[in-house]
Amino acid sequence: MFREVEAAHQRIKKFVNSTPVLTSSTLDKITDSNCFIKCENFQKTGSFKFRGACNALSQLSIMQKKKGVITHSSGNHAQALALAAELLGIKAIIAMPQDASPLKVAATEDYGARIITCGNHPTDREKAVEPLIEKHGYTLIHPSNDLRIIAGAGTVAYEFIKEVGKLHYIFSPVGGGGLLSGTAIASKHLVPSIKIIGVEPKNADDAYQSLKAGRIIPVKNPNTIADGLRSSLGSNTFRIIRQNVDQIITVSEEEIVAAMQFLLERMKLVVEPSGAVSIAGVLSKQLDLKSKRVGIIISGGNIDLTDFFARLRKRMHLVNQ
Amino acid sequence: MFREVEAAHQRIKKFVNSTPVLTSSTLDKITDSNCFIKCENFQKTGSFKFRGACNALSQLSIMQKKKGVITHSSGNHAQALALAAELLGIKAIIAMPQDASPLKVAATEDYGARIITCGNHPTDREKAVEPLIEKHGYTLIHPSNDLRIIAGAGTVAYEFIKEVGKLHYIFSPVGGGGLLSGTAIASKHLVPSIKIIGVEPKNADDAYQSLKAGRIIPVKNPNTIADGLRSSLGSNTFRIIRQNVDQIITVSEEEIVAAMQFLLERMKLVVEPSGAVSIAGVLSKQLDLKSKRVGIIISGGNIDLTDFFARLRKRMHLVNQ
Repeated sequence: MFREVEAAHQRIKKFVNSTPVLTSSTLDKITDSNCFIKCENFQKTGSFKFRGACNALSQLSIMQKKKGVITHSSGNHAQALALAAELLGIKAIIAMPQDASPLKVAATEDYGARIITCGNHPTDREKAVEPLIEKHGYTLIHPSNDLRIIAGAGTVAYEFIKEVGKLHYIFSPVGGGGLLSGTAIASKHLVPSIKIIGVEPKNADDAYQSLKAGRIIPVKNPNTIADGLRSSLGSNTFRIIRQNVDQIITVSEEEIVAAMQFLLERMKLVVEPSGAVSIAGVLSKQLDLKSKRVGIIISGGNIDLTDFFARLRKRMHLVNQ
Repeated sequence: MFREVEAAHQRIKKFVNSTPVLTSSTLDKITDSNCFIKCENFQKTGSFKFRGACNALSQLSIMQKKKGVITHSSGNHAQALALAAELLGIKAIIAMPQDASPLKVAATEDYGARIITCGNHPTDREKAVEPLIEKHGYTLIHPSNDLRIIAGAGTVAYEFIKEVGKLHYIFSPVGGGGLLSGTAIASKHLVPSIKIIGVEPKNADDAYQSLKAGRIIPVKNPNTIADGLRSSLGSNTFRIIRQNVDQIITVSEEEIVAAMQFLLERMKLVVEPSGAVSIAGVLSKQLDLKSKRVGIIISGGNIDLTDFFARLRKRMHLVNQ
């Protein structure tokens, strides 16, 4: 499937940001390794999801484009598909759960997509879209299990390794598994000796459980701050991850917040909880990374700072009086 | 003085981060121009000040290094000098005003500097350091008016223009004037046609007033959220700015916060109020930038996110119960 990643890279490069790779001497000191951070929080729409969305929509037939596309997403895939659809002049319908971040819902609407609200349980999402597909002939663009989405997500690691060269390890978050699958395909082809590490919240450890059991075990009540990682592996992502990923590790909620705090305070990067789990995995020291070259993918940066700015403005007015 | 900037660049390059330049299609659309953002919030210690500190300390005599250095600063120069001194094995004493950000005070102490607390009025700072210089023979490293500090600050624009090529405009914040002076020296030499724009808070508009009057008019009660810009021009920075800067524009407190919000929410960059004033100046549309190549310097990213994370953890524990 590496050729699909290469083709995706060619197909989407005029739409996507080639995101920067940053380093941090503090992080290197803490981990006793050489870390490289691929910043997909700087991607358009604030997450890597825009890559897969562009890749999938670019490949639709004229008839499919005319009828429109549909998906379900808690936020990042929603925004990504909405913008990609807007750029390509395609109608997009997005089912978003009731507990989705209001900021992500607003951004998705801003890009011109039509939102339908569904329940919070993972299976509610699919129930919401199926009748609409039947009725209107929309094409479903699944947020993670679609092979075009996986190939698009693989362009993150493709670009990353082309820029920094050989890595010993690459850490990626895992939710539905699209990013981890794409990362594994691109990385193992470019650097066969690389170790692929998926990191997920302990409170949504379906990838860990599924790999251990040898079959898909969907997450039941994912109670994690990492809203982008509450979904479960699908048939394609499970197969690809099982074949190509070396290890899945899990991190606690506190480890996720501490990683996010490190990134915001020390590295000045706005990162969402789901985006910070890969750094949390590195900082958790479950693997011996001594003197290794370690690639870390930060998947997105869409957090709600409304409160922070409301308080800042309030304090400012108090001072200015 | 351009040679001093070039020499500083050579002298400090092994210590400093060569910070990335970012672009934003949203910002380009809003401003109808081509913006390049030099991110000194990614500099070591979180601001451009580290460049000047390294340049100044590298040039001390053996005797001066042995006796130690002293300065006064509300935070960014304090942290920068503390780390530069630590790296070079020099003792550093820093006078910080009572109203300095506790986070900046803690960071300065972490780098091993000795802190002395002084009053909040700009003149209190100098009163605090003078007797110590007399008694112990410390070398004063002024945060902005020192020519070695100015040359170090000039390496920001030097690196910036070497990377992105010719610019029509360059926007820099102005507080004590070290960054704006260095920016003007480096930029005018590399691109003689470039327009240098200094941006400062309306509530601390001493540079604007001083240039209008033709003499230094120190700021009296700077009531601005941009804590790094409450200081006034000095003899050197006034002279350099008067000769080389095309225009000083001012921005309101709300414009500063809105710019900061744009940078955090849309560009995923943690930027402090002082660091955001240059973007605020661009967004204020006081200048016609249509189709121009515009360089914008973000000077630093040291904001206090303690509250934000305390609230996040609290919310997380509520959810996890």
